[in-house]
Amino acid sequence: MLRRGGGPPRILVTNDDGVHSPGLRLLYEAVRDLGRVYVLAPETPKSASGLGITLHKPLRISKIKLWNDVTVYMTNGTPSDVIYLALEELSPRIDLVLSGVNIGDNTSIQVILSSGTIGAAAQAALLGILGIAFSANVGDASELEEDTETWENIKRVIRSVVKWVLENGVPEEADILSVNFPRRVTPETKAQIVPAARTKFLQKVSIIYDPRGNKYYWLYGTLVDPEPGTDVYTVHKEKAIALTPLSLDLNLHGTRWQNAVAKLQPLAKSIEEALVAGSETG
Amino acid sequence: MLRRGGGPPRILVTNDDGVHSPGLRLLYEAVRDLGRVYVLAPETPKSASGLGITLHKPLRISKIKLWNDVTVYMTNGTPSDVIYLALEELSPRIDLVLSGVNIGDNTSIQVILSSGTIGAAAQAALLGILGIAFSANVGDASELEEDTETWENIKRVIRSVVKWVLENGVPEEADILSVNFPRRVTPETKAQIVPAARTKFLQKVSIIYDPRGNKYYWLYGTLVDPEPGTDVYTVHKEKAIALTPLSLDLNLHGTRWQNAVAKLQPLAKSIEEALVAGSETG
Repeated sequence: MLRRGGGPPRILVTNDDGVHSPGLRLLYEAVRDLGRVYVLAPETPKSASGLGITLHKPLRISKIKLWNDVTVYMTNGTPSDVIYLALEELSPRIDLVLSGVNIGDNTSIQVILSSGTIGAAAQAALLGILGIAFSANVGDASELEEDTETWENIKRVIRSVVKWVLENGVPEEADILSVNFPRRVTPETKAQIVPAARTKFLQKVSIIYDPRGNKYYWLYGTLVDPEPGTDVYTVHKEKAIALTPLSLDLNLHGTRWQNAVAKLQPLAKSIEEALVAGSETG
Repeated sequence: MLRRGGGPPRILVTNDDGVHSPGLRLLYEAVRDLGRVYVLAPETPKSASGLGITLHKPLRISKIKLWNDVTVYMTNGTPSDVIYLALEELSPRIDLVLSGVNIGDNTSIQVILSSGTIGAAAQAALLGILGIAFSANVGDASELEEDTETWENIKRVIRSVVKWVLENGVPEEADILSVNFPRRVTPETKAQIVPAARTKFLQKVSIIYDPRGNKYYWLYGTLVDPEPGTDVYTVHKEKAIALTPLSLDLNLHGTRWQNAVAKLQPLAKSIEEALVAGSETG
């Protein structure tokens, strides 16, 4: 069992698309009766905020009522800030952080590393709190809202993931679990456990001129052809649900670490020599 | 040799503290004659921006003269945006991205994952461009500027790292190389190859009331006692230079992956069952 203290599990629901995203409501509705559920999310979209935390300006929290009288807290901070603010202001103990449902899938390491949705789950994991991120391959929020079959099925999947995790935890090998939904989720949709691809987009820059003739730039990505057996392939080609356990450990291990150390040893030596030589030549 | 095309190596210098940070000047001065060096950086500080890229607003680039007539490009984008903008606007081929010198060390995975300095190097790595991040354990920029011995020694170390890497590359096991300097760098300072600690800060929230009596919050961190043999320990306790090769691969591998898959298989099954059951009960 995941529950670490007494009483019902304490679940924090957040996202990076902001409190007004239907994805946040979908996530809340899926788990509302599975524990003591708190909702705290950014007031405006913070997509591509990664694990960024806000150190340079004061943060505020305000309280609004949404979705038929549910109390929702919102902040001017990032999804990662949310974790710290929630522990300070809502509950000193949180058992599970659920982030999403993101509008747009978070497949591939390229996307994962800059995703605020995954960022919130990752910040939780760094504090020893289990984090699960949910993301859907839809182009915009209305696509999700208008496809009621997919909406209800995603809700069923989230419930079943959260109930299972509250009972069984996640494998201790993983820091976070990322769940990506295909564009449509039907009774026939399959679920697969797959690693993250390295890249998903060929990132591009569009050059545009404003009415005064000044150049500006807009970043966008075009999908690369995905490799079979990866999260991108599962979601985009097989139209299945991808379950991806992720580690936050960026270190090399075993022989890979030993090889890297052996190769870098001469660099460490040349650095020390440069410092000594510098003092001699003045 | 790292050089992939003809001519001198093409080096992009950037940071996350913005074009007016002395750390950017220090990095530029260290490598100015080691290749064709371009400088493009955020116009204002973008600390804790991680690998965030800007998709929601147009980006601009402007050109200024700094540091005795050096052409410096600046953008309203993030350090990660810089990589794409530079490839579009400055040079379609870049051999090496150098990011820093960050004001504040980027030790521990907790800090690395949200660092814009590391983010720029990581974005480069995702494009197959070698990225090196440099960061210094100083509290503010003036500390770095006023300690001329440390300033000159950091410059020597950067030169020696970049010359070595241009000649030898970095170990193929690593995606990026992160170099962290202690507060003071002297001829006796040692260089060590160490992995990243998991956490560096106990993140805290300070609660303050504004003149109108409204509550606001300020995030800050207190240093945790570092584990020997980690980057945090090397920089903060041993006062040595930490060389940390990092991988961007968040996937589990080998038996860790197999164990995680075995444990998650029942979850995949229960998801598929929930979808089928949902269609039956309507």
